[in-house]
Amino acid sequence: MNEFELVQRFFSGRPPHRDDVRLGIGDDAAVLRVPAGMELAATVDSLIEDVHFPANLSAEAIGHRALAVNLSDLAAMGAEPAWALLALTLSQAEEPWLAGFARGFFNLAERHRVALVGGNLARGALNVTVTLHGWVPAGKALTRRKAGVGDQLFITGWPGEAVAGLYQLQADTRLQDGGECVKHFCFPEPRVEAGLALRDLASACVDVSDGLLVDLGHVLDASGVGATIELEHLPLSAALLKRHARSHALELALTGGDDYELCFTLPPAHAAMLHERFKRFNCPVTRIGAIDSDPGIRCVDGEGQRQVYPVSGYRHF
Amino acid sequence: MNEFELVQRFFSGRPPHRDDVRLGIGDDAAVLRVPAGMELAATVDSLIEDVHFPANLSAEAIGHRALAVNLSDLAAMGAEPAWALLALTLSQAEEPWLAGFARGFFNLAERHRVALVGGNLARGALNVTVTLHGWVPAGKALTRRKAGVGDQLFITGWPGEAVAGLYQLQADTRLQDGGECVKHFCFPEPRVEAGLALRDLASACVDVSDGLLVDLGHVLDASGVGATIELEHLPLSAALLKRHARSHALELALTGGDDYELCFTLPPAHAAMLHERFKRFNCPVTRIGAIDSDPGIRCVDGEGQRQVYPVSGYRHF
Repeated sequence: MNEFELVQRFFSGRPPHRDDVRLGIGDDAAVLRVPAGMELAATVDSLIEDVHFPANLSAEAIGHRALAVNLSDLAAMGAEPAWALLALTLSQAEEPWLAGFARGFFNLAERHRVALVGGNLARGALNVTVTLHGWVPAGKALTRRKAGVGDQLFITGWPGEAVAGLYQLQADTRLQDGGECVKHFCFPEPRVEAGLALRDLASACVDVSDGLLVDLGHVLDASGVGATIELEHLPLSAALLKRHARSHALELALTGGDDYELCFTLPPAHAAMLHERFKRFNCPVTRIGAIDSDPGIRCVDGEGQRQVYPVSGYRHF
Repeated sequence: MNEFELVQRFFSGRPPHRDDVRLGIGDDAAVLRVPAGMELAATVDSLIEDVHFPANLSAEAIGHRALAVNLSDLAAMGAEPAWALLALTLSQAEEPWLAGFARGFFNLAERHRVALVGGNLARGALNVTVTLHGWVPAGKALTRRKAGVGDQLFITGWPGEAVAGLYQLQADTRLQDGGECVKHFCFPEPRVEAGLALRDLASACVDVSDGLLVDLGHVLDASGVGATIELEHLPLSAALLKRHARSHALELALTGGDDYELCFTLPPAHAAMLHERFKRFNCPVTRIGAIDSDPGIRCVDGEGQRQVYPVSGYRHF
């Protein structure tokens, strides 16, 4: 099959079908309708073999992750996802691989009502680049810029699980059907509902892709504030603690990447409303500290002792 | 420099500055404002070394082409370009290369008032994926679907030059500063103004990236019609005819890729208006045939004899 036939077979005409797609796959560009009063949110991320995921990761997991990492970016903006473009570069067009990839991609797309409206398919080293579009009511996007002194600091879910899962996979790729941590790495669940619930509530928000300390650091830099993390409140999952001693689990939760959880700040007056809104769907959320005026991040343990962790994040160059 | 520093140095804060960019580079997603009454046009294209361009093509040409091929897609929709996202994957971050790439990209971006609003920078095999956004008045997008029997068939510019230039480059990459054909390959000029002028005028439009016969074929398939091309009217540039005999030049103009010219169909009643509008800017445009009801493409010479050309286009798989 040539690329036109491959697109037809695996990517065209897949649900969901959205009325706001005036023209989807099959012309020089997609034509889309942003609802009145809404601003467009747009993000792009690439997944590259041996950089963002181990070689031999299942095609289904790659398809899922490629969309999930972008959904997570929109979630961090409080945006409702709508349309994706997929630029897929492959060394060879193996039908079982493409079928698996499409299954992972479209299962997640359907759950979040994301329509694939265009793309590019080419031969080359494996590179999956997804551009995702969504919208927010004008002026309501969550940003990194408005964390305020005295705000409470929160995290969704169970940070550290993904990197623990990645370590398992790097040791043995046959573990893809393994436990919670591996699943969290292979099939991260972007916190789209949480992001929507945080509109008009959180003062700042970021998704944790490079590690909690690194990404929180971006928020603090953009807002001109600092933070204290109370380590005894950091949520550590049973799955993570089963595989790692508490001190190491803490380090993974603070510095590991690929979690795709939301880290956000909340004016204290909004705390009751937060719990009210989060009751409506299934998303763990934990207060882990507070914003203060002293630049940088302080991690303190139950006795108030300061602990120091490496703040590096993945560096491509 | 790590990737944050590289983005800061080469990609952030570059002109043009647009009021409709609410939030650009530096958050989880860009936030953009589509004007009322407009529909969003979105397209993505990847350029891959040794597939879309020869190894050792100058970084400036790669930067230019990566944006140009997407501008050409928007031109074919009659859309006004506005915002780009750049996913750039590089095996190494060499500053002179990045400076050249940025020069090629932003020179073209500035001319078409395209703001870079986000992206992704990662390590891996060279892959340049640009997502470009623009807009068209609601319902006014040019498509491939409405070519009508009796419409006239047009092409902008000088098809065939780019592939002739590519052949020169493949023979000797030191020819990058060579003549018209090489320049046409390295620095294609997308027909953005022509696309805008064709709104409410052309019945169908496509950009010629895979070759005139292949791309015209997409229009004919989508519209359920056929076409006759009068070979004696096909515009062959002096630069092309200097390097190739007329019969070979004709074949290159019909089957060569990478031209990024617009091929469009025009109801005869719109012919006077076409020439009126095209007088306002510098874009050669030539009537090369007509749409008829018989499926397929017939190429006839000055004596009315049918000539047959290969219709293949580049196949990735």
